[in-house]
Amino acid sequence: MGEGTLKTDMVIIGAGPVGLFSVFEAGLLGMQCHLIDNLDRPGGQCTELYPEKPIYDIPSRPRVTGQELIDDLVEQCAPFEPVFHLRQQASSLTRLDEGRWCITTSQDVRISAPVVVVAGGAGSFVPKKPPFRDLDRFEERSVCYAVHRMEHFRGERLVIVGGGDSALDWVMNLQPVAQKITLVHRRPEFRGSPDSALRVRQMAEEGLIDLAIGNVCELEGSNGQLERVRIKTREGQELQVSCDYLLPFLGLKISLGPIAHWGLNLAKNNVEVDPATFMTDTDGIFAVGDVCVYPGKLKLILTGFYEAAVMAHAAFKHACPDKKMAGGYTTTNSVLQDRLGVR
Amino acid sequence: MGEGTLKTDMVIIGAGPVGLFSVFEAGLLGMQCHLIDNLDRPGGQCTELYPEKPIYDIPSRPRVTGQELIDDLVEQCAPFEPVFHLRQQASSLTRLDEGRWCITTSQDVRISAPVVVVAGGAGSFVPKKPPFRDLDRFEERSVCYAVHRMEHFRGERLVIVGGGDSALDWVMNLQPVAQKITLVHRRPEFRGSPDSALRVRQMAEEGLIDLAIGNVCELEGSNGQLERVRIKTREGQELQVSCDYLLPFLGLKISLGPIAHWGLNLAKNNVEVDPATFMTDTDGIFAVGDVCVYPGKLKLILTGFYEAAVMAHAAFKHACPDKKMAGGYTTTNSVLQDRLGVR
Repeated sequence: MGEGTLKTDMVIIGAGPVGLFSVFEAGLLGMQCHLIDNLDRPGGQCTELYPEKPIYDIPSRPRVTGQELIDDLVEQCAPFEPVFHLRQQASSLTRLDEGRWCITTSQDVRISAPVVVVAGGAGSFVPKKPPFRDLDRFEERSVCYAVHRMEHFRGERLVIVGGGDSALDWVMNLQPVAQKITLVHRRPEFRGSPDSALRVRQMAEEGLIDLAIGNVCELEGSNGQLERVRIKTREGQELQVSCDYLLPFLGLKISLGPIAHWGLNLAKNNVEVDPATFMTDTDGIFAVGDVCVYPGKLKLILTGFYEAAVMAHAAFKHACPDKKMAGGYTTTNSVLQDRLGVR
Repeated sequence: MGEGTLKTDMVIIGAGPVGLFSVFEAGLLGMQCHLIDNLDRPGGQCTELYPEKPIYDIPSRPRVTGQELIDDLVEQCAPFEPVFHLRQQASSLTRLDEGRWCITTSQDVRISAPVVVVAGGAGSFVPKKPPFRDLDRFEERSVCYAVHRMEHFRGERLVIVGGGDSALDWVMNLQPVAQKITLVHRRPEFRGSPDSALRVRQMAEEGLIDLAIGNVCELEGSNGQLERVRIKTREGQELQVSCDYLLPFLGLKISLGPIAHWGLNLAKNNVEVDPATFMTDTDGIFAVGDVCVYPGKLKLILTGFYEAAVMAHAAFKHACPDKKMAGGYTTTNSVLQDRLGVR
């Protein structure tokens, strides 16, 4: 285990409702958890996709919104002091000695634990990539799927691809900063809001940006540095545009991410598990929530809560085969009540 | 199917938390439910054993009492208008034609449905029976395990057995009503409260009741009508006491009840199920909650909620193999929202 590696009992990948409830169930058994999530706050799909929409089928909650559900789960697991690593993906998994695993995140955080739990929901939300030939050659230096700092693009020549709100918004926002912007969209109509579409068209008419209706057909440059793109217009013309950066804004898709390459037993982007333990076919790696499959699987938040409880018990036995488990119920067991801080 | 038989989609035996949530999950799929419970209100163990105690491990409920949990579940399933048959046991199960079952309760209510769900928790709370020879010969006419109406015993000669609070309370309450009461307890010390014990001993000294320390060793009578009991005292004497009724108050025990004799696959008073459907080995009979077992079973209320959801889906497919199931989620699906009455 390298220097600066954090040590814990359970690393949970995904801080959605099931990841949060896993913290609670593991906490009751005395296990401490770290969570990793690509988003900037806990909640997963509940807070990203339907924070204000009521959910009706959480047991004993006749009506609860996505955000309320997450707030309550965060409160419920708070006594167990989970550590959150947000805005990063779990990028690699390495087997250590003594049955431990080491997870490294995309921000180079390293965490080691005997148990890794994939609670990745439908996967991470990641940008869709355009199907351009040689894209990967330029991805590291010259292709950006998100704008983290506008200053990064000051004085640069940009090719922005897309016709939705992200593409239009970034055209408008980056125009005063960049040296030159070329917007490439495959058809004259934009998917983004009519206001933004109108403004971007005006900017093109005023000569503030270039607008090309067509497709990028070639990327050119050397050593990963983009120098120009070739565009084939709808009318069959070929344009050549000099540029420093390519910014594709083609929407988000759900992807299992690096986990897909960890050698787990996958079935259609889902991870196969034993429904008596929720362990995958890899020792010490568990999966719960929408990401896991087994016969009879019903994709509900409730299902994930149940899976978290069973997983925590199995993970405890896996991590501490010689330790006695605190049995009994939270209504009566004083060990559990001490851990919850309610005695 | 006989006259006066109620017809429904699902008969649920047990109106505890899991039975109630089964109503909700079946209701979302368009199935109507009747529930049968031995207690006089819904709630099962939650409201009988710990109505005021907080539970901490219901997902998204950092703290909820047994009574609050049940109140919320009753509210959640209310849109589906469940029919409750309380203060009665499901006494017999008969196979009808066309894949339906008929349940008869101890109050002679008959209900037919394609699906029967045993959600019996740990079983029914039933009185412990004394190990007296020939007890069953007199049970129908002369043995009472509970007092429903005191007037029933006016002018009668009673033998009350036991030394706990129930036995002492009924001695004190029935003394003014009965012609004669003999209290039989196996040892001179009573388990009941000191106040009651003192009062009962005073009543014996004053000659208001007879007190025998020893064991009932024989019941005598004819045609099910008890005439006298023989008691062997601690000192080895044999007493003979004329009586009309025997009232044993030896506490309650949990019993699976008549379900134990329905031919289901039992393991230590639990019903074995397929965890992908929660169907027992008998077609159309399902089991959920504490009463059912399968590999990896974790006895939590949460587990029962999950089982109810999976069972409802399997039961729907079983009962209506040709009907399309309303898919999707309560956040978005308008059919589900119409059923919930929230659109």
